[in-house]
Amino acid sequence: MNRLYLIGTGPGGLEHLSPAARAALESCTDLAGHGLYLNLLGELAEGKTRHKTPMGEELARATLALDLAASGRTTALVSSGDAGIYGMATVVFELLARQPKPEWAAVDIEVIPGISAMQAAAARVGAPLAHDFCVISLSDLLTPWELIAKRIDLAGQGDFAIAFYNAVSNKRSWQLLEARQTLLRYRAPETPVVVAFNVTRKGEQLTVTTLGELDPEPLNMLSLVLVGNSETRRVGRWVYTPRGYHHKLDPSPIPD
Amino acid sequence: MNRLYLIGTGPGGLEHLSPAARAALESCTDLAGHGLYLNLLGELAEGKTRHKTPMGEELARATLALDLAASGRTTALVSSGDAGIYGMATVVFELLARQPKPEWAAVDIEVIPGISAMQAAAARVGAPLAHDFCVISLSDLLTPWELIAKRIDLAGQGDFAIAFYNAVSNKRSWQLLEARQTLLRYRAPETPVVVAFNVTRKGEQLTVTTLGELDPEPLNMLSLVLVGNSETRRVGRWVYTPRGYHHKLDPSPIPD
Repeated sequence: MNRLYLIGTGPGGLEHLSPAARAALESCTDLAGHGLYLNLLGELAEGKTRHKTPMGEELARATLALDLAASGRTTALVSSGDAGIYGMATVVFELLARQPKPEWAAVDIEVIPGISAMQAAAARVGAPLAHDFCVISLSDLLTPWELIAKRIDLAGQGDFAIAFYNAVSNKRSWQLLEARQTLLRYRAPETPVVVAFNVTRKGEQLTVTTLGELDPEPLNMLSLVLVGNSETRRVGRWVYTPRGYHHKLDPSPIPD
Repeated sequence: MNRLYLIGTGPGGLEHLSPAARAALESCTDLAGHGLYLNLLGELAEGKTRHKTPMGEELARATLALDLAASGRTTALVSSGDAGIYGMATVVFELLARQPKPEWAAVDIEVIPGISAMQAAAARVGAPLAHDFCVISLSDLLTPWELIAKRIDLAGQGDFAIAFYNAVSNKRSWQLLEARQTLLRYRAPETPVVVAFNVTRKGEQLTVTTLGELDPEPLNMLSLVLVGNSETRRVGRWVYTPRGYHHKLDPSPIPD
């Protein structure tokens, strides 16, 4: 069988890797992925042929994984988080749709979901994504900034909580500043914001700040930013976005 | 130690339950949750005191879990999917903020993330949530329909892919019809739509249809609906939303 698994490793710590993903990885002879994510697998990657490809080489990586599987190697194409949320799964399907090779028709594909970074970060601080939310990448490498900016504005109008992926990179941080300015037109400067880095990994950092004080400077390309909606509040060390059960508790208006 | 775990069991199949969630459940003496979700835990729930509370009794369930933990019982408050995405985690924080009991101050809370139903459904059909997306509940029990309708319209304007939770209930299905009508103002009737039921559980059903043909009639309260954006396409049995790598493959316009 020519099997290709499209796997998300979860946020990093192997205690969050599902048994389904672990079993699939164990069955593989070959792993393809960015070196950082293959390294996070630790002993799970041992004894397997590891094909490390750099950031920016996503098409080559997906092509390699399809080729390996077509040649009879049981292969996993490894993303971090969930392979279906800004991960590699869709790159494989884009290739199959637009540049298929005949031999890829024999590849049996399975996508295995994983816990995404926004979920691990949310859990560490409470429940900031507990009501309707948007997930937006601030990377304009493949998406025009005009569309991203429009989506941020609409998320602001709709009072969605927001998870920003690719919030900054080594080359850019103005996008996050612009996002902050846009959201400040709709939300109070006191709106809780969570900045997460390496959640469940070595060196984990979580900072709870506010929209008004959000500073892109200390962030890097592994940072994730969660922005609360107008009802998001803090209690003790926790940040939460209510579902609205408090209306059953107390009919008085929500305190600011 | 007075420990309370806020746990999402994942989509249902225990192969998607993280080792962290499993270990936490194993350490518990008491489990609180809707009976359906406690039953999904199978042998993991055996030997534990199970406190089953009905749908609609979320405040009572969270209060019970806090009381149990405060009394010294190691307790898990169990949601399906991710406890932080339309799950029970935020209900606990709402109580702590608005109706705290003095004895709850001694409760040590940990939130453990899980794979949400939208992720399991997306993985089964490909990668429909692979670009920016919105997560919207169509339940108007706690949120005014006007706000939900506004969010749907904004998601349409922004060409977000969408995951609809609580798409229908036993009592209502007009909300999903109205959502469809709204989105048809912005998206083609051919836009791929995924209707998922009991994903990874016994009786799993997945249907790929289109926005134009989406019919609420066969759905029930366990159904999840994923709507693609304007670029979402099918290839073979898969549904995917491109990141845009095809622009590197082929500079020609996207075929309809």
